[in-house]
Amino acid sequence: MRTVAIFGVGLIGGSFALALRKAGFAGTILGVSSAQTIARAKELKVIDREATAEEAAAAADLIYLAQPILEIMACMPRLAAHVREGALVTDAGSTKIAIVEAGEAAFPGGQFLGGHPMAGREKRGVEAAEADLFQGRPYVLTPRRQGDLETPAASEFLEWMKKIGGIPVVLDPETHDRIVAYTSHLTQLASTALAATLDGRPEPRSGVFGPGLVENTRLALSSFDLWNDILATNRGPILEALRAYIDTLQGFCNDLNAAHMREQFARAERLAASIRSAQCSK
Amino acid sequence: MRTVAIFGVGLIGGSFALALRKAGFAGTILGVSSAQTIARAKELKVIDREATAEEAAAAADLIYLAQPILEIMACMPRLAAHVREGALVTDAGSTKIAIVEAGEAAFPGGQFLGGHPMAGREKRGVEAAEADLFQGRPYVLTPRRQGDLETPAASEFLEWMKKIGGIPVVLDPETHDRIVAYTSHLTQLASTALAATLDGRPEPRSGVFGPGLVENTRLALSSFDLWNDILATNRGPILEALRAYIDTLQGFCNDLNAAHMREQFARAERLAASIRSAQCSK
Repeated sequence: MRTVAIFGVGLIGGSFALALRKAGFAGTILGVSSAQTIARAKELKVIDREATAEEAAAAADLIYLAQPILEIMACMPRLAAHVREGALVTDAGSTKIAIVEAGEAAFPGGQFLGGHPMAGREKRGVEAAEADLFQGRPYVLTPRRQGDLETPAASEFLEWMKKIGGIPVVLDPETHDRIVAYTSHLTQLASTALAATLDGRPEPRSGVFGPGLVENTRLALSSFDLWNDILATNRGPILEALRAYIDTLQGFCNDLNAAHMREQFARAERLAASIRSAQCSK
Repeated sequence: MRTVAIFGVGLIGGSFALALRKAGFAGTILGVSSAQTIARAKELKVIDREATAEEAAAAADLIYLAQPILEIMACMPRLAAHVREGALVTDAGSTKIAIVEAGEAAFPGGQFLGGHPMAGREKRGVEAAEADLFQGRPYVLTPRRQGDLETPAASEFLEWMKKIGGIPVVLDPETHDRIVAYTSHLTQLASTALAATLDGRPEPRSGVFGPGLVENTRLALSSFDLWNDILATNRGPILEALRAYIDTLQGFCNDLNAAHMREQFARAERLAASIRSAQCSK
């Protein structure tokens, strides 16, 4: 792997570039992004130089698509004519069914491999990029065929992924999208809904709140621009997860008594403890 | 103030004792708690020595009630015969209407002053106590009459509160209970409901989740023993806050389109940013 092209040099794309460098990648890193982002990315030494989409697609051994989801889907058909044989196209979008479908259509020969690093921050942009963002975090891959992971280009990508600290998890796109609807998208919407419910109300203006409110509204600082595409491409599973959450809350309202609530707190504690031990064992 | 009696030497009571010491309190700190807690509190030098409730009430200039809410309410009538004239009885319970009512009944002469430090952790017990717990955090006081804050004992308590870094906020008990229903109790229940919804489901077991889920389920580790009393003594405002939250979430389900959700994300971001700037200015 001698040349890597990063499309969308933001938090994820920029962090991937920094992580590759830190892990010893000595080749060229091209950036395809807005002029402003490219200027900052060069200043911060995140990329070596800019390129047009066509130049980058033609030059790269690895094409890393880290734009918002709908942009990833829109750019793939345009790149297809330029990507070299033997090169790998992968992405870092937060939903996978729609992207993998578009990838399969644009690159029917198995040259596209869907990906989703489970690493994020509420901050955006190349300024927020950090070399250790993927360290110890699951990195989901969604091949359509088992063989997709065994091509020379995919094998090399997997090696770099491990070098940057990502933990590969192989899932089909449908399973991925259902999982993240519950673990990630519901979490975001629960935080957004909490903050939106309090917005404009007098209670938080009193200044009387504990550290819990601050913590549970951090995700509410996330930009809608990214979430627009996630909501648009994972609507069904997200609605299902939201309804399950509303059912739990409605159960609290209907039955705010000691027996029911003790059971709910016990379930919640079990889940919260189990995801913490899962993290520690990584 | 020469003798302080801490009833319930747990996270809050223990932290208050440690904070007083760090701020230069040179008098005696008595502890009234279970035998096991007393032993550990003495080992950790949180208290000087143990006392029975009656001895402590009779000896102390400041009686600091930091048990669970229902225990605070139950103990006050029993202490009333023992507390010295000129001493102050205060508490650290998370709801105030019920406690202040019980305090007024037990100490009709204005000797009782309700309090609620907005400082907490998901950990409990004297082991988790820390001298800086109150630093920079609001400390709500709920006097029934303005004069209650101006007695010599209350003035001295206020001075110590400032020395330990607490920011006094004066509210009536009804306003307090409504505020914390929205800012604190709803936050807890949103976190508990998120974790309880995921408990037993396959999605989190995949290990595929980001740091957001871990953060938003930290409160779900809280013990129900404390929350039982909070739910029992602030039921009306909590139900109202829960219903407002469910309404917001139901609005997401009914209208998961770009225009509505962009507006909701904008509201959420505004609230999340405003409580952060409120914190910084303290």
